[in-house]
Amino acid sequence: MEKLTLRSQFRLFGEGKAFGPGIAELLEGIIRTGSLRQSAMAMDMSYNKAWSVLRQSEANLGIQLVERIMGGAGGGGSRLTPEGLEFLQRYRNFCAEANACLNRLAEQYFGGGDGQ
Amino acid sequence: MEKLTLRSQFRLFGEGKAFGPGIAELLEGIIRTGSLRQSAMAMDMSYNKAWSVLRQSEANLGIQLVERIMGGAGGGGSRLTPEGLEFLQRYRNFCAEANACLNRLAEQYFGGGDGQ
Repeated sequence: MEKLTLRSQFRLFGEGKAFGPGIAELLEGIIRTGSLRQSAMAMDMSYNKAWSVLRQSEANLGIQLVERIMGGAGGGGSRLTPEGLEFLQRYRNFCAEANACLNRLAEQYFGGGDGQ
Repeated sequence: MEKLTLRSQFRLFGEGKAFGPGIAELLEGIIRTGSLRQSAMAMDMSYNKAWSVLRQSEANLGIQLVERIMGGAGGGGSRLTPEGLEFLQRYRNFCAEANACLNRLAEQYFGGGDGQ
């Protein structure tokens, strides 16, 4: 059998989809660019779609993740709320610990013959 | 914060995609119906797509998962090879153990206030 590697995806659901790799990436893009629009563009996502995904996530999480910044040199932008940043970090830490655990498990179930 | 539940997906990659929930479902459909065509239909997948996904999986796994049965009352069909059945069972057991571990972890990271 070929050497196999595991890739996992973790999504959190409340009433509906609350968080996952796509929303995490969107938030990280806002951290990087200060803009929901630019973050969406970097993901080949329309601004409307990104806005809608974000609002759905906030509703299902019960947390405000992003807030508008008014004015300033660029005419405004977006940033994560303190709760949004905390949750993002918590999700990323969960994913790191989950992947470490899963890779050990995958080694038991699928690892093998090639000594890796 | 709302009560959150975790949903995870586990995919195995060799050179390319080797196994995952879709292929597992396709194989279980073949066990149930004795037919790749019927299994694909139950998943709203075209026969050609199912055949292609199956062949790609076998190539990336290095295992033959399914074989044709010639003749018989129904004019032939498909069944899992012994290696295919063994791998499917191994994948399902992995998923069960992985989910048990992840749910405990998710309880630590996201569980909470509502006592569940």
